[in-house]
Amino acid sequence: MNYKTLITATAGAALLPTFALAQDAAPDIQPYILTTLLFLVGGFLVFWMAAGFAMLEAGLVRSKNVTMQLTKNIALFSIASVMYWLVGFNLMYPGEFNGYFAFNFVPTSLEPVGLAAADASLDYASVGSDFFFQLMFVAATASIVSGVLAERIKLWPFLVFVVVLTGFMYPITGSWQWGGGWLSEMGFSDFAGSTIVHSVGGWAALAGALVLGARIGKYKDGRVHPMPGSNLALATLGTFILWLGWFGFNGGSQLAAGTVGDITDVSRIFANTNMAAAAGAIAALLMTQVMYKKVDLTMVLNGALAGLVSITAEPLAPTLFGALWIGAVGGIIVVFTVPMLDKLKIDDVVGAIPVHLFAGIWGTIAVVFYNSDASLVVQLTGIVAYGVFTFVVSYILWMVLKGLMGIRVSEEAEIQGLDTSELGMEAYPDFSKG
Amino acid sequence: MNYKTLITATAGAALLPTFALAQDAAPDIQPYILTTLLFLVGGFLVFWMAAGFAMLEAGLVRSKNVTMQLTKNIALFSIASVMYWLVGFNLMYPGEFNGYFAFNFVPTSLEPVGLAAADASLDYASVGSDFFFQLMFVAATASIVSGVLAERIKLWPFLVFVVVLTGFMYPITGSWQWGGGWLSEMGFSDFAGSTIVHSVGGWAALAGALVLGARIGKYKDGRVHPMPGSNLALATLGTFILWLGWFGFNGGSQLAAGTVGDITDVSRIFANTNMAAAAGAIAALLMTQVMYKKVDLTMVLNGALAGLVSITAEPLAPTLFGALWIGAVGGIIVVFTVPMLDKLKIDDVVGAIPVHLFAGIWGTIAVVFYNSDASLVVQLTGIVAYGVFTFVVSYILWMVLKGLMGIRVSEEAEIQGLDTSELGMEAYPDFSKG
Amino acid sequence: MNYKTLITATAGAALLPTFALAQDAAPDIQPYILTTLLFLVGGFLVFWMAAGFAMLEAGLVRSKNVTMQLTKNIALFSIASVMYWLVGFNLMYPGEFNGYFAFNFVPTSLEPVGLAAADASLDYASVGSDFFFQLMFVAATASIVSGVLAERIKLWPFLVFVVVLTGFMYPITGSWQWGGGWLSEMGFSDFAGSTIVHSVGGWAALAGALVLGARIGKYKDGRVHPMPGSNLALATLGTFILWLGWFGFNGGSQLAAGTVGDITDVSRIFANTNMAAAAGAIAALLMTQVMYKKVDLTMVLNGALAGLVSITAEPLAPTLFGALWIGAVGGIIVVFTVPMLDKLKIDDVVGAIPVHLFAGIWGTIAVVFYNSDASLVVQLTGIVAYGVFTFVVSYILWMVLKGLMGIRVSEEAEIQGLDTSELGMEAYPDFSKG
Repeated sequence: MNYKTLITATAGAALLPTFALAQDAAPDIQPYILTTLLFLVGGFLVFWMAAGFAMLEAGLVRSKNVTMQLTKNIALFSIASVMYWLVGFNLMYPGEFNGYFAFNFVPTSLEPVGLAAADASLDYASVGSDFFFQLMFVAATASIVSGVLAERIKLWPFLVFVVVLTGFMYPITGSWQWGGGWLSEMGFSDFAGSTIVHSVGGWAALAGALVLGARIGKYKDGRVHPMPGSNLALATLGTFILWLGWFGFNGGSQLAAGTVGDITDVSRIFANTNMAAAAGAIAALLMTQVMYKKVDLTMVLNGALAGLVSITAEPLAPTLFGALWIGAVGGIIVVFTVPMLDKLKIDDVVGAIPVHLFAGIWGTIAVVFYNSDASLVVQLTGIVAYGVFTFVVSYILWMVLKGLMGIRVSEEAEIQGLDTSELGMEAYPDFSKG
Repeated sequence: MNYKTLITATAGAALLPTFALAQDAAPDIQPYILTTLLFLVGGFLVFWMAAGFAMLEAGLVRSKNVTMQLTKNIALFSIASVMYWLVGFNLMYPGEFNGYFAFNFVPTSLEPVGLAAADASLDYASVGSDFFFQLMFVAATASIVSGVLAERIKLWPFLVFVVVLTGFMYPITGSWQWGGGWLSEMGFSDFAGSTIVHSVGGWAALAGALVLGARIGKYKDGRVHPMPGSNLALATLGTFILWLGWFGFNGGSQLAAGTVGDITDVSRIFANTNMAAAAGAIAALLMTQVMYKKVDLTMVLNGALAGLVSITAEPLAPTLFGALWIGAVGGIIVVFTVPMLDKLKIDDVVGAIPVHLFAGIWGTIAVVFYNSDASLVVQLTGIVAYGVFTFVVSYILWMVLKGLMGIRVSEEAEIQGLDTSELGMEAYPDFSKG
Repeated sequence: MNYKTLITATAGAALLPTFALAQDAAPDIQPYILTTLLFLVGGFLVFWMAAGFAMLEAGLVRSKNVTMQLTKNIALFSIASVMYWLVGFNLMYPGEFNGYFAFNFVPTSLEPVGLAAADASLDYASVGSDFFFQLMFVAATASIVSGVLAERIKLWPFLVFVVVLTGFMYPITGSWQWGGGWLSEMGFSDFAGSTIVHSVGGWAALAGALVLGARIGKYKDGRVHPMPGSNLALATLGTFILWLGWFGFNGGSQLAAGTVGDITDVSRIFANTNMAAAAGAIAALLMTQVMYKKVDLTMVLNGALAGLVSITAEPLAPTLFGALWIGAVGGIIVVFTVPMLDKLKIDDVVGAIPVHLFAGIWGTIAVVFYNSDASLVVQLTGIVAYGVFTFVVSYILWMVLKGLMGIRVSEEAEIQGLDTSELGMEAYPDFSKG
């Protein structure tokens, strides 16, 4: 199933009854306009997720590393914007290709100014809006990595990794499914990217965490030493921003808005996305109360995000109750796997591996419950394929970067904080540190 | 007047001249698509208000209670999402019913995937978009309560109250007007909910404040002791978020966007909503300068919000000048009633009772100035009906909760701060407290 | 070229092939609805920039001046909203006039409720949406001034300046181009306002900075003393908000969305706007690394903003590569001109003169590279005309305000901080200052 081709076909079919009077002389341009609008609105909502990741991560690191975390987030988004234009978009959506890798290294170019209706893809949307929308997804993938590796990775090796991830790794694996490649042919199903976006970010981050090692003192003396985030208001703001942006992430992935069926489907997706987030948050709220006798806000935030990731592979087909329990399982996964990672001494500063990788796997599996076309074997095949490729390539790349330029700041720099040691600029210079 | 029926009728009429050529074979689907889009965009804007309330409240409580306030806000939104699906939506919009209470306890279900145009309510919008939009309103009601009762109420009793408020109380009273019940039959007018949403939240909060009592030390020795908010940047951000979200709140409440008349009306509403907020802010700015010789930022913020609440009952009919003075009166109300509540020793941490209850009453009365169909007696009837029901039921519920589980944290916990005492997690752990 | 007239003409032409069947009986209302929708969505995005400026500035001032900066930002937006309604909008878009100044002092009035299609400007959009959209631009201009003059200007003289700027100065010069005045007749080109909005704000601020003088201690003993911003997380949030809002700023300035050509153009604008911001950020990232051996986050933020300002005069015509290099030059300009201003002892607290004035000039010049209709001489004429008028009038106004009421707080007040001295309210009262 080629994502684009699929949509084109169904959209075409759905159009039949709507504008029967739109004959030869005047093709119906409304679906094109409305789908383009969907991409623009969906795209700016997903753009907004870049701010969400930045705030979430800035809130969950210690105050001495906030400037660095902010710098990484705005830099990674900017790099993703350039790399996806330079090679990524056409690697990911190459048209006809071998299904595994497209030798299609050309920058994106847009339609001319003042495009005539006769020259437009009236069964889809403008290239500019499509590019704008898809670009925002790759940036989300890179943001996941920056959160996991916070507080100890050097700026420049991280940015080099982002160049490769956003220009090559994500687009190549993306083409397997959304570009009409081998997994799409096989029948893999991942509506808005539980695997293709979120797990990929998680695998890349996991490889980095293993190569980079834990923060100094995190697992000293065989115990886990909590290093609480410096600003939970920012972290909560970031979570609300991500929740908002996710309506664009999942809703825009309908890839069509110009028919009754499509816009109604977008509505289902909005409602389901909200429900899964709410259920993930409530699940984490209840679980932390039961397990620890105290509600843990950071778990609630990550529970909401895990609910969102969980519904992302299939936000359309489930009922609202389906979205509820799929999202709730996502929230529960987070509560159980955050401490599990700590037991394995894998230091994930913001909890992004549970949220994006583990809940992403769960969401991709959960597709089979409400989508009779989906096969568990195929879903697992896709999960493994994305995992093996991304983890292996990332691991090698992190090792190469480690060898070439070093990826970790010095011990002194880490203890002092990356803001003053690496950037010479504090995030909160006026405030006494406690 | 049934809100939905009313709109359906006017939309139907307005359609006549637009697509006269859309005959039997091809019903006009554009109004359906555009109204659905209005609900989706309006809905995500109102969703965003949840973040606004969270930031506003987190900024106006003391730093020792910020984590708790954030937890309450994300939890209440999540609970509202589930309860409104489980029973609320169908209690509120039951279709034909006795006008007071609908025995209609069924969860919301959405249209099937890929809805055919022939099966759609082409004179309205998709159920999913309608549910998504309406759901966001109930969450706003609950947010009002969390602000008033901050810094001393226990988490779980508060959340139990939210369950009842969002699943039952708000939907039942909502059905009186927007569900086509007795107040709607009587001719009550409340376009987007000055009373139905904002005053209801205010009444529920007022009952809670009376049962709960003031914070320790707030009214010690017969004087009012200010307890300034810990982060006015967050409070200002929250206000801007709410202002932004309000365009969706009021604009989406047009409930139609597919005709020239409807989209032009939505434009009027946007412009009027902005004007009322601006006027409320300016009124508070001038009043505090005149009365106290110093501008008070928190009053300006609340003045803007009061302007918004004031215009919410009728954001369409007034001229821009009408919106200006109606909003300005809202701002003035805040400046005068915040100290009045303190004199009554009613401890409203964020000023939500003046903003949402008092300005909400004002806005509901102000409908009569620009809407010749509205009657002052009927408006007052509605105000009193909502007030009596919500206040009495809330008061009883708070008393029951007080008896069953206690609603207030211990004195030690309150002095220490709810973050460490109740949650074991500080919002700003790296910073020294002054 | 009258902005509105131009658009009307092209929109009319573009409509021909689309709804040939929409004959006499039923005029095509879709372009009207979609352009109105573009203004509403674009308008709320540009509204959101008010929050962006507030957060950026609150993050870049010292903690003792944060409450004042927040107060100025919400007040200036509110005042702009009222003044632009009272006189600004009709001064700026007077219809037929002498091309320099319109004697057209009437408040804005909107179309009646429930406008009939026959009475609508079906080739454009609703007045309400147009007013709403244009209003947001004038507020941006005023925000630029507040950032430059932060930490030392008194509240009320600043607000008086805002009254004149938003009610008269900006609308009058705006009418030269967007109102169909002499510069528009001459062929000046400034799509969304690199000059008309951003440089104008910059010139007004520059005049203010000269009259007001630098902050105490900033240029003591012949050296530049850095006064770092108190909250870089807020500053980064503000930058992301502005970036998001800019999609509305530039995209909405297409002023039409109802044809294939127009919505595709809006898509180009979104993609180009994002690219220019990314390139500006990357340019500043690389430049500060090379020049100072350390990346400077505040430069990266301002680099992104400068990229945005640079592309604003012509976001449509350039290719994505064009947007990249135009934006990158903007980022480089910031890195070089921030220290240059300091050498000239012009104290610009947030770097808004480099971002909005210098990059605004650059963007207006850069129009000639991708727009064959544009002439460098005419572009320079426009730049100079806006500069001379705005700088001279602003300078006189600041001098008058200085003479009449004083524009600078006392030395004691400035050292103590404006929050406690002028407003009696700290932004972060719970935190110890370091």
